[in-house]
Amino acid sequence: MPRVSVHQAQEVADAALARAGVPADNAAVQRDVLLEAELRGFASHGLLRLPRLIERIRNGVADPLATGAHQWRSHAFLSVDGERGLGPVVAMRALAAAGDRAKSQGVALAAISNSNHIGMLAYYAEHCVSLGQSVIALTTSEALVHPWGGRRAMIGTNPIAIGVPTGGEPFVMDTATSVVAMGRIHDHANRGEPIPPDWALDEEGNPTTDPERAKHGAIAPFGGAKGFALGLAFELLVSSLTGAALGTGVRGTLDSTEVCNKGDVFIIIDGPAGRLVDYLDAIRAEQPAAGFEAVRIPGERGRASRRTTLERGLSVADEVWNRIIDMAA
Amino acid sequence: MPRVSVHQAQEVADAALARAGVPADNAAVQRDVLLEAELRGFASHGLLRLPRLIERIRNGVADPLATGAHQWRSHAFLSVDGERGLGPVVAMRALAAAGDRAKSQGVALAAISNSNHIGMLAYYAEHCVSLGQSVIALTTSEALVHPWGGRRAMIGTNPIAIGVPTGGEPFVMDTATSVVAMGRIHDHANRGEPIPPDWALDEEGNPTTDPERAKHGAIAPFGGAKGFALGLAFELLVSSLTGAALGTGVRGTLDSTEVCNKGDVFIIIDGPAGRLVDYLDAIRAEQPAAGFEAVRIPGERGRASRRTTLERGLSVADEVWNRIIDMAA
Repeated sequence: MPRVSVHQAQEVADAALARAGVPADNAAVQRDVLLEAELRGFASHGLLRLPRLIERIRNGVADPLATGAHQWRSHAFLSVDGERGLGPVVAMRALAAAGDRAKSQGVALAAISNSNHIGMLAYYAEHCVSLGQSVIALTTSEALVHPWGGRRAMIGTNPIAIGVPTGGEPFVMDTATSVVAMGRIHDHANRGEPIPPDWALDEEGNPTTDPERAKHGAIAPFGGAKGFALGLAFELLVSSLTGAALGTGVRGTLDSTEVCNKGDVFIIIDGPAGRLVDYLDAIRAEQPAAGFEAVRIPGERGRASRRTTLERGLSVADEVWNRIIDMAA
Repeated sequence: MPRVSVHQAQEVADAALARAGVPADNAAVQRDVLLEAELRGFASHGLLRLPRLIERIRNGVADPLATGAHQWRSHAFLSVDGERGLGPVVAMRALAAAGDRAKSQGVALAAISNSNHIGMLAYYAEHCVSLGQSVIALTTSEALVHPWGGRRAMIGTNPIAIGVPTGGEPFVMDTATSVVAMGRIHDHANRGEPIPPDWALDEEGNPTTDPERAKHGAIAPFGGAKGFALGLAFELLVSSLTGAALGTGVRGTLDSTEVCNKGDVFIIIDGPAGRLVDYLDAIRAEQPAAGFEAVRIPGERGRASRRTTLERGLSVADEVWNRIIDMAA
């Protein structure tokens, strides 16, 4: 795995996006979202996604110029037709409009359809918090998760991110409603290691520890019936507000050829800001349970990873790096 | 356990509330929330709560007359000082105002402080959905849940309910972010049965299967680190928006003597309503996995229980029923 500096990764990513016809300002937003995921240790949402995105542009299912058509359905409800734009480009422009509206309204919602994969939700949550606003961010994905008690993938991995200003470091949590990301199952497959028995079902809907079989099956919702209820609620809420496709009808988040029909929802809240840092410090200072080194606040490990990775450079898989180099040349 | 008709339970609950000085309209709201929980099979949020509530009124920490003072901080952000009112009374009045505002704004938020326990969140979610609106409902509680990797209770059970109109039966999910309710640990203690090893820690922060020890310890977050992240996010978001106390500072949701300083947040969304019933029907029709009878949609079991319980009457624990009878006399 080559270690590349962040600067080097930026230049190569920008060059690859430019070659695909992405204007510099749009490329900077798209590349920043991917690199922030790399910096925080979430390679599944990092540069790995760039070659596929560029293929999507070449195939006409991602438009490098589009920034989204905005329509205020009412004072605080923004409907965005993403016009097949790059997910982060469309999302950041929607967030700017909705965040501004939240200042006067107290709360505003952006419902985005017809836009490409937006990457790590925490990126957007941290952005909102940096402006002093709280946010609930949702996005849907292709069906990879089975209903609790079911056998087949019928629900997206449907992550949620929540950001809250604390009076100190931002609080940002970001988690899929699947027990693991499909990327981790692929990791195990690549390393030839079995997966835990409660992660996934095979194609016939039976539990499996074989990651190769799990790749063609369904991931479990996290936390059993509760995580299923949450993931399903997000699928329904996002589809209802954005017109996004549902379940097995969702396309374009994993492939290179289909128009992306998932949805994204951001609820931005401009409210009173409490002082939360003392409480978070108290949790951090708790004596850890047996088997734990420390009690960690969500988002902290990613920020720590960001600091060290900025110094040491990124570790990018050879295959991914070589493909991006090729696409930039 | 006596079986009592819903009508009988209404009359006795109303009489007990009237004796405590609760006006008939406020009593009807409070009693309805408790009885709907009984009907749906959630006894922990049912009549069990009534004697303590009446004690709270007698002790001056719940005001039977208050309905909450409303202040619109901005067009779509309603701050409610609950004035120590009955939780459901204050919440339903706040919902009416915020739901009405959501019609013109697209989204509106009610942030409630200084109000008593609001009971089952699903009640409010179903109410919003019946008006054609989607809702995200949050409320905090006394610290009963340990941080992931921690030893002591530092976080509330912090439930979330999400309601979405579907074009058919309402979709309403409602779940605590703890792996179980403290009520189920008490149930096991009452029956002298051990609890599963991953439910709770004892007072020293060690895993225990003894429900008596767990009662003085901490419940696990559901789904490990992910459920912890969600529960913590809700604690922070609700406190930030309502000024509610945090963690071990929260009082008045389990006792009879302290002013209640948790918070409630409702985000009501009046957006486009998609047709979701076909997707839900498809999930319902899935072949169940081994060990499951059927794939169930969240909220359905409660509605089925409601239908049969309306016919057969409620099963109320003797101790609870006798106390309410006494309080009504």
